[in-house]
Amino acid sequence: MPERVGVVGLGIMGFPMARNLLRAGFAVSVTNRTIARAEPLRADGATVCATPKEVASQSDLVISMVTTSSDVEAVTFGDDGIADGAHPGLLAVDMSTISPDVAKDVARRAAERGFRTLDAPVSGGEIGAIEARLTIMIGGDDGDVERAMPVFRALGKTIVHMGPHGAGQATKLANQIAVVLNNLGVSEALVFAAAQGLDLAKTREVIASGAGGSWAMANYAPKILSGDFSPGFMVDLQQKDLRLALDAAYATKTSLPGTALTHTLYTALQQAGGGREGNHSLIKAIEKLSGVEARAKKTSG
Amino acid sequence: MPERVGVVGLGIMGFPMARNLLRAGFAVSVTNRTIARAEPLRADGATVCATPKEVASQSDLVISMVTTSSDVEAVTFGDDGIADGAHPGLLAVDMSTISPDVAKDVARRAAERGFRTLDAPVSGGEIGAIEARLTIMIGGDDGDVERAMPVFRALGKTIVHMGPHGAGQATKLANQIAVVLNNLGVSEALVFAAAQGLDLAKTREVIASGAGGSWAMANYAPKILSGDFSPGFMVDLQQKDLRLALDAAYATKTSLPGTALTHTLYTALQQAGGGREGNHSLIKAIEKLSGVEARAKKTSG
Repeated sequence: MPERVGVVGLGIMGFPMARNLLRAGFAVSVTNRTIARAEPLRADGATVCATPKEVASQSDLVISMVTTSSDVEAVTFGDDGIADGAHPGLLAVDMSTISPDVAKDVARRAAERGFRTLDAPVSGGEIGAIEARLTIMIGGDDGDVERAMPVFRALGKTIVHMGPHGAGQATKLANQIAVVLNNLGVSEALVFAAAQGLDLAKTREVIASGAGGSWAMANYAPKILSGDFSPGFMVDLQQKDLRLALDAAYATKTSLPGTALTHTLYTALQQAGGGREGNHSLIKAIEKLSGVEARAKKTSG
Repeated sequence: MPERVGVVGLGIMGFPMARNLLRAGFAVSVTNRTIARAEPLRADGATVCATPKEVASQSDLVISMVTTSSDVEAVTFGDDGIADGAHPGLLAVDMSTISPDVAKDVARRAAERGFRTLDAPVSGGEIGAIEARLTIMIGGDDGDVERAMPVFRALGKTIVHMGPHGAGQATKLANQIAVVLNNLGVSEALVFAAAQGLDLAKTREVIASGAGGSWAMANYAPKILSGDFSPGFMVDLQQKDLRLALDAAYATKTSLPGTALTHTLYTALQQAGGGREGNHSLIKAIEKLSGVEARAKKTSG
């Protein structure tokens, strides 16, 4: 069982995850590109390091929680990266959402350098990270997954070993496909209802209770109706994940017409300067096309 | 309170609804284009009539449960239709899914002929009809809705007065938009997962538990993975409803790119002879485009 756990990347997700590891009793060392982000964790007992190399050298298991595939490659194999601090028995667990092919490549290169890896992306967002209720989708070898389980249990609730290296990332991308199409369903249903002059709060409630129901209808639609477009999960990051899904689909000649369409609609949001709004602002693209806004009114039919 | 209730149309939905009305203690008269369909209800105490006119003449409230807008116009205003048997105080409640504009037109014409109407389409399918657990979305006047409530309570659980004539139909169409896009989300997520070589049962479970979850992921995906494409709700009927939604959207210049795309994919299913399969066979269109089948295997990763 790993006793010393490192965290590389202390953003919206990595920061509360590091805090949960401290609470669970692990010896935690951390680093971040902007090192000031790490300071509050020092007070909680974390060791603040200057580089991923330094974190890796004093950890049994090191988590990376960064943004892009190239970020993962940089913190793992770049100058002063995890590989430079690797030692026999080090397990590097990347919990960012990146390309399944890059995850496989990282595993192969790590094996050459004498350490092991898992890909273990998460869903559940900032709130899931704070409350240690993440869903964790894992790709890699059985023994490594078993070794990492005490760490995963400190971070999440639904923890599933999906298959070999890359399978965690592939599962995360499949999840994002479902998320954005459910989100599109919310968007088009509410815009249609608004154009038909319906009471939108009632419409949402009726749809949510039946065969049109979804996590998105339960969670995004009330925010939309109240005009709250703060993230949650940002359009720019959702778009990054859709790009990964469409790249992986392209590589296997998998045709995903709805995902491709939704990706294009998110692009229009980014073009209009909305990349840092919440995922549910997808409806703004449909509203713009349709010349109608879907917001709740006080009056009802 | 209506004591005598008529049912015109004894198909998959109308038949069990008539039975539930009998169970609830109403005096029920029924008719159907194919009159033999009505015979089992006679044994339960229903009066079997030759025409909608005859049903209307002996009912306080008459339900129509047929297929298309023109079916509703025919049973209401055609030869020996409901209007021909109308009397002061008759309330004609159309529970079919039809055009909101036709529902408004039916209300206007009925008023000219001296009887009143509601549009009250349902969701919940055959099982909801059998178990008296339908969701009922109502358009019309307050007093008429109140009068019909004892009848609705014998048929459904979630009963919502959405607004004036046509608002029930518009809500149903908004619901169908959400249903088909959630269904597309299931289809593309599972096809992607299959192409990536993932264990599909595990993938489904992980997605269903989080932000990608939906009624469709909970109910359609297991049938897909087991290869069961029986209806449930048929592609031909879903396609009819999408046509109504897109017609209503066209009339208000509402742009629904995802709904339009999904309509086109259902068309391909119909073209291939799959119109009488279940709604969740939408995935077959994505499978065909992608050259991969999403079925559960015994082996797991």
